[in-house]
Amino acid sequence: MLLVTYSIDGGPRRVGVQRDNEVFETTAQSILDSGLAETGAKHPLSAVTLHAPLRPGKIVGIGLNYTEHVAESARTLDTDKELPQRPVLFDKPATAVVGPGEPIQHNGNLTQQLDWECELAVVIGRTARRVRPEDALSHVFGYSIMNDISARDQRRSGQWFFSKGQDSYAPFGPAILTADAVRDPHELDLSLRVNGEVKQKSNTRYMLFRIPELIADISAGMTLEPGDVISTGSPAGVGASFTPQQFLRPGDVVEATVQHIGTLRNPVVDAR
Amino acid sequence: MLLVTYSIDGGPRRVGVQRDNEVFETTAQSILDSGLAETGAKHPLSAVTLHAPLRPGKIVGIGLNYTEHVAESARTLDTDKELPQRPVLFDKPATAVVGPGEPIQHNGNLTQQLDWECELAVVIGRTARRVRPEDALSHVFGYSIMNDISARDQRRSGQWFFSKGQDSYAPFGPAILTADAVRDPHELDLSLRVNGEVKQKSNTRYMLFRIPELIADISAGMTLEPGDVISTGSPAGVGASFTPQQFLRPGDVVEATVQHIGTLRNPVVDAR
Repeated sequence: MLLVTYSIDGGPRRVGVQRDNEVFETTAQSILDSGLAETGAKHPLSAVTLHAPLRPGKIVGIGLNYTEHVAESARTLDTDKELPQRPVLFDKPATAVVGPGEPIQHNGNLTQQLDWECELAVVIGRTARRVRPEDALSHVFGYSIMNDISARDQRRSGQWFFSKGQDSYAPFGPAILTADAVRDPHELDLSLRVNGEVKQKSNTRYMLFRIPELIADISAGMTLEPGDVISTGSPAGVGASFTPQQFLRPGDVVEATVQHIGTLRNPVVDAR
Repeated sequence: MLLVTYSIDGGPRRVGVQRDNEVFETTAQSILDSGLAETGAKHPLSAVTLHAPLRPGKIVGIGLNYTEHVAESARTLDTDKELPQRPVLFDKPATAVVGPGEPIQHNGNLTQQLDWECELAVVIGRTARRVRPEDALSHVFGYSIMNDISARDQRRSGQWFFSKGQDSYAPFGPAILTADAVRDPHELDLSLRVNGEVKQKSNTRYMLFRIPELIADISAGMTLEPGDVISTGSPAGVGASFTPQQFLRPGDVVEATVQHIGTLRNPVVDAR
């Protein structure tokens, strides 16, 4: 089931189920009785505004989780060229979240190196504390897309928080694909385009640390709560890795796609 | 006014005003009409359990914000020995917060280097977005204490998030001193003791980046919301800086004190 948060004509935000090009209003009850998920009012997708599916409690980001991205980062972002021995964890605050269609803010006073990273986002559904890898997926509510926007020139003493945590640096959505509908989260194509041109193209099977291991590793020390999000890392093809480097500019449009989930499309706007 | 969150005999959490050794039940209305703040039921401080004053939205930590701590960190934690040119920002998630008296978890399977950092915590009261330094203090609700607990051996590719963000690594409290009661937040003594022995002793006047500058810097890119906390950095005297290094062990008791606010006391427990 593809869950969306939507509104119509600036009205209240509702939860809906997306099927093909329609959105069905739904309720907690009808989600529980999932056969009934489509009993509510029906709207063409084009008639609704989609929002970020939820406001996460915390967003745990995973750095350097695809082999080729480790290599390109070592070359261009002075990170370690060895594969990490344990997941590299950072985070983005909830205030960084924007939904599909909402602008990514380009503040030329703060950055000249605004970059993209298409990532599979894991939405936690059940509190996870010291979870074993073999039990980890039972804590997953579903999967979505996060674009891990980064101002490469705003690292502070090597810390990524300000470079990755600014307002609008966590486009999230357009939907959550519930876990029951995903046969294998490590067999999903993901790709990213800027102004229609493909920059990233990979598959989640190439993650270094897979989702069960990530949940086990994080929850060994840090409780994951319902609504928390793990952004599982970016494949190769970030802007900093190109020669010459490519960075986002006002007027650009970024589209991050994950198979079966959808496309998260955000314009870049001048926000000086 | 010293605001506390308290409960009695495991009952519901309430907001109270602490005066001397008593806690007065209060309400939003009586806080607004601050002359009436003490009209509610009165309890001896010894009869109530204090909790973390609130659950922050985000906790923005400031690294390397006292000159002598920059020097000791460069010597023992391979950070830069130059003074930072801009605030070094990281964060801790809300799940890391514990209140006064609650245990700091020592998990010997994850860390042998659990360390303390006594810090003045700034509680945001009014949304701050691109705030000028001269307007910044009007966004402060009040001041509290945070002990920025760090597992020095859990940095990941240099990132501090997992080393500083684990459950119980953000002891917070015991009270919020409202901003109107603080003449100058940069004239407060702060100190930390482990098992009664003084390890840190300084004054907030020695901060490199002062609170107005911190709020302006963070809010240039990242919205600060009511209930967000800025933990303003640690003075010298962290455990890693001693020769030989000193780290927290189960059975230790850590007390972080900030003048006029109180003492935040937490035992360290074995949590393997």
